[in-house]
Parts: sequence; C-alpha cells; structure tokens
Amino acid sequence: MRSPTDLGEEPPVRKRSGPLAWRRSRWMEPLFEIDLDLGPKGSRESGRSLYLQLRAAIVDGRLRAGTQLPPTRKASAYFGVSRNTAVDAYDRLSSEGYLVARHGSGTYVADPIPLQAAPSSLLADPAARYRLNGFWLRSDIVEAMGFWRESPRHAATAAHAHTGDFRPALIDARLFPIEEFRRVIAAQLRGLERKPPRYVSPQGNQGTFRLRDAITQHIALTRAVVAGPDDVVVTSGAQQAFDLLARILVTPGETVVAIEDPGYPPLRVAFAASGATIVPVPVDAEGLLVEHLPANARVICVTPSHQFPLGVMMSSPRRAALIAWARAHDAVIVEDDYDGEFRYEGNPLQALRSAEAADVVFYVGTFSKCMLPSLRLGFVVAPSWAMRTLVAAKNALDWHCSMPLQLGVAGFIAGGHLSQHVRKMRRRYRERREVLLGLLQHQLEPWLEAVPSSYGMHVAALARAPVDLETVAERLADQGLQMHTLRRYYLGTPGPAGLIVGYGAVDVADIRRGLGALRAALEV
Amino acid sequence: MRSPTDLGEEPPVRKRSGPLAWRRSRWMEPLFEIDLDLGPKGSRESGRSLYLQLRAAIVDGRLRAGTQLPPTRKASAYFGVSRNTAVDAYDRLSSEGYLVARHGSGTYVADPIPLQAAPSSLLADPAARYRLNGFWLRSDIVEAMGFWRESPRHAATAAHAHTGDFRPALIDARLFPIEEFRRVIAAQLRGLERKPPRYVSPQGNQGTFRLRDAITQHIALTRAVVAGPDDVVVTSGAQQAFDLLARILVTPGETVVAIEDPGYPPLRVAFAASGATIVPVPVDAEGLLVEHLPANARVICVTPSHQFPLGVMMSSPRRAALIAWARAHDAVIVEDDYDGEFRYEGNPLQALRSAEAADVVFYVGTFSKCMLPSLRLGFVVAPSWAMRTLVAAKNALDWHCSMPLQLGVAGFIAGGHLSQHVRKMRRRYRERREVLLGLLQHQLEPWLEAVPSSYGMHVAALARAPVDLETVAERLADQGLQMHTLRRYYLGTPGPAGLIVGYGAVDVADIRRGLGALRAALEV
Repeated sequence: MRSPTDLGEEPPVRKRSGPLAWRRSRWMEPLFEIDLDLGPKGSRESGRSLYLQLRAAIVDGRLRAGTQLPPTRKASAYFGVSRNTAVDAYDRLSSEGYLVARHGSGTYVADPIPLQAAPSSLLADPAARYRLNGFWLRSDIVEAMGFWRESPRHAATAAHAHTGDFRPALIDARLFPIEEFRRVIAAQLRGLERKPPRYVSPQGNQGTFRLRDAITQHIALTRAVVAGPDDVVVTSGAQQAFDLLARILVTPGETVVAIEDPGYPPLRVAFAASGATIVPVPVDAEGLLVEHLPANARVICVTPSHQFPLGVMMSSPRRAALIAWARAHDAVIVEDDYDGEFRYEGNPLQALRSAEAADVVFYVGTFSKCMLPSLRLGFVVAPSWAMRTLVAAKNALDWHCSMPLQLGVAGFIAGGHLSQHVRKMRRRYRERREVLLGLLQHQLEPWLEAVPSSYGMHVAALARAPVDLETVAERLADQGLQMHTLRRYYLGTPGPAGLIVGYGAVDVADIRRGLGALRAALEV
Repeated sequence: MRSPTDLGEEPPVRKRSGPLAWRRSRWMEPLFEIDLDLGPKGSRESGRSLYLQLRAAIVDGRLRAGTQLPPTRKASAYFGVSRNTAVDAYDRLSSEGYLVARHGSGTYVADPIPLQAAPSSLLADPAARYRLNGFWLRSDIVEAMGFWRESPRHAATAAHAHTGDFRPALIDARLFPIEEFRRVIAAQLRGLERKPPRYVSPQGNQGTFRLRDAITQHIALTRAVVAGPDDVVVTSGAQQAFDLLARILVTPGETVVAIEDPGYPPLRVAFAASGATIVPVPVDAEGLLVEHLPANARVICVTPSHQFPLGVMMSSPRRAALIAWARAHDAVIVEDDYDGEFRYEGNPLQALRSAEAADVVFYVGTFSKCMLPSLRLGFVVAPSWAMRTLVAAKNALDWHCSMPLQLGVAGFIAGGHLSQHVRKMRRRYRERREVLLGLLQHQLEPWLEAVPSSYGMHVAALARAPVDLETVAERLADQGLQMHTLRRYYLGTPGPAGLIVGYGAVDVADIRRGLGALRAALEV
C-alpha cells in the first residue's frame, strides 16, 4: 500500500493505463487505486470506460457515498479524457442515481440507492462473499500470465512510433499469406454441416485432408516426429494443451511438476491451476539439469529443441539421461516444441519424442509460430495409454476445437501453403538472426554474449559484467522499444542476468536501429 | 466380465464398432475385449486402424507373447476387413518385430522385443504407473459426457437409412446459411493480422463490429438481456463457459454446486472436474424446487427459460425465490440459456439475469443452437465483481478464442444474418413443434403427455401409465430412429418416466414417420 500524501489541489501525474493513484485531496477523501485503461484518447471507448470504471468503484465501495468527484474541467488531468467525455459519464451516472450534483458545490457520490433487489450484497466485497477461487488473482499468477503484455511504461510512450518489439514468442504476422488462408478457409467451408448432425471427435478432425492427418504430415516433415492421427489431440493452442495435460496428469495436492528455470511462465500457471506443486529445476548449456530433478517429480516439462528462453538445445546425453530418469521414477515428460519448425544450423537433433520415447513423452506443438497466434490452434501427440483420458478431458473442457478453423488449417497444410510459408519465414528469420548475432558480436561484445542456439525466433544474450539491465530495458521502453530481461523468466533463484532479443516481429532495419539504441542505453 | 466360452473355430458375431469380444479359441488364448472402430469397410483407415489396435493390444499386454492371431483368410469374420488389409497389417507388425510368422503354422505375437529404451514400462499398466487422474474415465463421467452420442445399438443399424434423429440439443444444420457465413468470414479475414502484434484480450474481440459488441446486441434483441461488452467473456461454446465458471467458483473439496435433476449431464461434469460436490435438486412444473436447495450450496445451475430436459419455464415467483435464496445464502446462479432465442408463445419472461439480478447471475449463452454447434462459440455475461478473475482464468485456459472465428461470427451478427436466420428457424421449429404436439395429443395420448413449454427445440413427453420406455427406445433404435428416454438425465432418484423428443434435426415428414414408429413401438 502506498501511503496517502496530501497534495492539495495538485493533480497527480496521469498515466493512461496502469494503476492511477488518486491521492488524498480536498475532494477525494480516501486513497484508492483504480485501473484505468481508457482506450485511445478522445475515443468513444474512453468515455464509456470512464463511466464503467467510476460505476464499478461506486458499486464496490471504493468510492463511498458523499465523496466529491473531480470537477469536469479537470477531467483531462485526472482521467485523461476531455471535459465533454467526463460530462457525459457524470450525466449518465447521475441519471442512474450513482452521482448527485449539488449546485454551486460539485458532484458527489450519491447515498446508497435502495435497490429493488440487491441491497446489502453490493456493499460488501462480492468476490470474497461469493468465495471466488483466489488462485487466479494471485499476484504471481497474474504476473506469469501477463509476462509478454506491454509494460505500462511502454504503453505510456505509445504516442511515439514504436521502434521495435523485441519480445520473444511474437511473429511477423505481416508476412503471413492471409489471402491464401482466406481462400482455403472459404473453400473448406463449402459443404460444412450439410450432412446430418453427428458426433465430432474431441480429438479433432480426421480423414482425408483433415487436420489430424495434416498435423502428422507437418510434424513428420518439419520435426521427424512419426505419429498417426490416432496419437494426436487438437487443442486451442499450446496453452490449452498444457491445461489439458495438467488436468489429466495432476492429482491435486499430490503431483509434483518439475519445470525449467528459467522457463515459460504460462506453462507453470496451467499446472499450478490444477493443484500441482511446481518445482523449478536449473538449466545449463546442455539443457535441464537432470540430476537436480526432485525424486518425487511425476511430470517434467522441457523445451529440448530451443530452451525457453535461454535458447540452448538439450544435448544427446542429457536427453538420454532425462528419459532414463523419467522411466526410473515413473514420471512423464512434456515436450514443448514451440518453434521447432525454425531450425537454422547445427546437428538436426530430432524431437525428444522419438519412437523409443513415445510412451513417456507428451509432445506439444502449436500453429502460433508457424502460422498465427490468434488462430489459437495447437496439438498434443500423446502416448497411447493416455489417449482415452486425454480425449475425455478435452471433451469436458470444450467438446472439440472449432470445425471451420480445423478445416481451414487442415486445408492450408494439405495444400502445401504451410510448408511454403515455413520455408519463406525460415529464410527471413535466418537473415534477421544473422544480423542480430553479428551486431551482438561486433557492437555489443563488451556487455553481452549471445547464447548459442540453432532454432527459433529469439536469442538470449547474457551480461558479461554486472550491469543493471532492468534500467536498460526501461530506457529502451521510453523510446518505444520493448525488450525483456531474463529476470522475469526465473521462478527460483535468478541465474545469470541477460536480455531476450526476439526477432519474430522486427525486420532487419528494426534490428539495426534497436540494437543501436540498446548500445546507447548500455553506454550511458 | 463375460465368461469365456469355447467356440472352437467358430468366429464370433462381428460388430464393426463397439467392444468386440474375441473368445477363447484354438488360437486365441486369453479372453479379451478390444474396441475396434475401423472406419468404413475397405478404406485405408480400416487397415491402419487394425494395425494400430493390434499393436496397442500387444504393447499393453492384452495380446501376450505366443498368442496366435486369426489367419488372414478369416480377417473378414474376425476384423471386418479384407484379407489384403489384414495381410498388410500383419506384415507391418512383423517388420516391426511385434509378430512372428511360423511357416505352416500361423502368425504369433512375438516374444517381448528387447527395446532400446522402453523395456518394463510397456508391460505394466502405464495409466496406473504414471498416475493419470482417474476422474476422467470414471464410468459416470464418461456416461455423462457421452449422453448424446449414438448408442452402439443404433450405430449397428447405421446401414439402415436413418429415419430420424430425435435427440435433443441438435439443430438442423442443413438450413444454416453457410454461403453467407463463408462470405462474411472471408471478408472479415481481410486485414487480419496485418497490424503489428498486440495483446488480444482473453475476454474476446471488442470494438466496432467486433464480437463482444455483437453479442450484447444479439442478447438485447433476442433475450432482453442488457449488458455491455465489458460484461461479456467469449468462450469455446457453453461447455467451456461451464468449465471456466467451475474453475473460478469452485474451491476443490469445499464448494457445493446444486444442479437441476433431471439436468444437462455435461454441465455437472465440468463442475465435478473442478472438485465441486454436486447435489441434484428436483424440478417441478415451475422449475427448480428452491426449498430443496441444500443450505450450503454456493453455486446453483438452472435453465429457467426451458428447463433441460423437461422443458418447463421457471415461474416468476420461483425466480424471485431463487434469487432471494441465493442472496440469503451467499450463492451465485449460473443461468444456462441454451436455446432462449427460440420462443414460440406465452408470457415473454425475460432471462433470469435481469438488471436487478446482474450481481448474482452468470448468464451463459451459446451459438450452438442459433448457428452451428461445430463453431464452438459461446459466452458468459458475468457480474462485474467476477470479471477480473474470469478473464484471468480464460487467459490461462487458452488465452482467448480463435480470432478468425470471432471475426466471422461478429460479422455474421452485425450484418443481420443471425437475426434473419433465427427468424427463419423460429418459423421452421414452430411448425415442427405444432406437428409434434398435435401428434402427441392425437396419436399418442393413451401413453404420453407432453410437458408444456414455450421455448426450444425439444419436448418432453411423460408416460401416463407404467410402460417400459427403455425397450421402446431400443425398438426405435433398431429402426434407425434415435430418441432418448428421460431416465438418462437423472442424477438422483429418477422421477417420472418419459421421452425427450427433439425436433432440431428432423423435418415435419421425419416427425410424422418417427411418431408413427413410436406409436407402433408403444402398441407392441
């Protein structure tokens, strides 16, 4: 809690997004914080949003009866909206009885309205009263899920031209062949549902030119993963795959899940949400340190092709040790192969999920990187002993994935558009990667050392000497340039400091500009 | 367990789907049952499927080393596939070391292969060894989720022309304007993702002509539910809405959830999966019997417009009592308004989620009935105090719903196609309903009495006198006609016997034929 500060009539510094503290003042009795995200300035949304957020604050008691609101002429300073917008919001709230205007004195929160139906319940904290499961708003969970959201600091500079978005796990959607996809999806929808209703498999669409077949074709080609359509469950992206696996592999309060540290925060949220105990396990240049696995781990989540976010590839001996460990401890492995389509060099080590390990590895793939994240389509290749349970769980979660989408993506793969797009993007990403690695080596060598990696769309760069990278990242954000430090990806004791430089969403010119700005920020 | 019967060389009766018992015989040492679902006879799938299922049976020990397989010349009788198909499957299994051919003697399951990696684990029961969460394969859960799957008996008569599918919760997809939808979705995809990557709200698409706005427009028009886009979360159908609500409203092992009995089985699966205690509460002609609610219920799930499956509408006094009960007991209400768009007569009682009850009612809607179930799109209108938690949970489940789909459905609504389609279908369904009610009254009056209802696409008909409706339903299934008895919808003590007659997927001619067949089956 911030301590209240009497600022008199001085309005606080306004941010258009993020927590806005209204401090104690003549008209603001209690201190309270309110998340204002009012949309583009002057837009219809910002007016509506002001109305809704004030109403919410009144309804849930943050703004108490008798509290005076800021005068509309100060709306710009307090709310970041025009006077007219504030007048509209005040008028609407007044007409609904939430506010009352006293002539010559100002606008006040009205006395509680004797509502027909909901008298007392609106005054207490309903979330507590109705016992919402507290897990979802735990600060660590909110932070883990929001790991790639724009920082408030960056959003504050939204007026600037963005000079580059170097966050990982983004792609260059501008290069996606949306016209081909449109044509394919439209063609595939022909005849959809003309047949009598029938049972659609929760596992996903199957048959000639259908999605599960297309997926096996795609992963055989790009990842040398040999699997049949019966081994595949289609999911709403990798995130649903994690949730689904958590729900079948975790017995709440019992199951211990080992994750890489640093790692991908939303994965651990999915497992924690199902009641798993999460244990972070350190990573070195060969991948997860198998000897650090807790003996009671029953699920081990890894990114063997391109460790997220460090980028290292798990070595062959480490892979063998991991699989042996899993077998010896009755544990299963979740392989998150989030960008395995994009390999540029090095020994073409296949996925961990080889034929020999098919009984202990759940292989998770996604179309977020090789197509578009907003499709929300991914899949699990699962051991046959788990398939019935997996399908039953998928069924209960949402029956199955959207059929038009499954048809569209299946057609896109079967028509060869996906492999063509992957080839194209591999060239593009390779070019960006080379420029990036060159700049890191030649321009940023005094401060940073790139972690070798052969896959993906980001590079980790570790700090050679102690340097406050958080401040560096903030300086970049002030220039409209987003780059993550490694720190946010640690769950346990943070290891080496570094930066994650994603090149999925930036072109070569952006990279040159961005790394120039990075150098300047490091030189300060 | 069936007891083994020595049938000598006599092959068992073959079913192409469902459990096939291979009985003790000269070449089949142990009795075992294997689910064979081989696809259309003679198709590539059936060969592949035979291979996979035999392999699975060998791998998991159902087919032990030394077991002799049926000769390929009997493949048709044993597997329902051609000899060539069986030869292919055997060959592949032999080349992989699972089978061994002894000249002049037959084909046998090979001795366990000293696999490189997976020696012992393949022999034990991996599902137990790896501690799969047992919930999903509990027989009551499997049955509840499969409630509308075709019965094996019916599937066995698939060769017959289906004379009618009277299961509830189906729609007439043949009448869906798929051409308009194709055009809209293709138009909406123009420009998708041309912009730089940005945060997509887990709540769903918003803004001009976007889905959440379109949903508020749709429910205001059809259901008089007044809500803003900020009150809506888009979900993968109603099933994900139930799962999502379960995950925020249930504290595992603590929360008691009251459901209607009879009710919609998949809803209770979602809540049970999150660790809720489910309590069935009986229903009468006015809806849920509020006085039967257990005092510790914290979530009450109801279908007030059109009780599923009885069809009654919850009366005004009952609604008032339910809301008062919820307020008095700190409980919330989940309103499943699964077919509220289709109202034919009677007092236009609005949704339970009125402005006065907006703080305690979670309103769940779906596009499965008014558009297509295979779209997998629905939504929750939630009290504002729960929204942050709901959005956080949706985020962790799958980030957000597929953007092409959201755009397509938003455009379909905004372009007026949905209201046009609903108007058309209301006329069609009304016509079917009148024919159906007329036949029930005039032809089936000695046996059945229709439960009055004003909404939806099914009618419940209660038995006037004791009659074995299960046998009646089986007789109909033998004729390729599917109709559910009421019994499967009860969780607690079954109430009155009856039939559920869905008219979503059948036309007037089907209804006349089907009810003729029903009469004949009752007259036996």
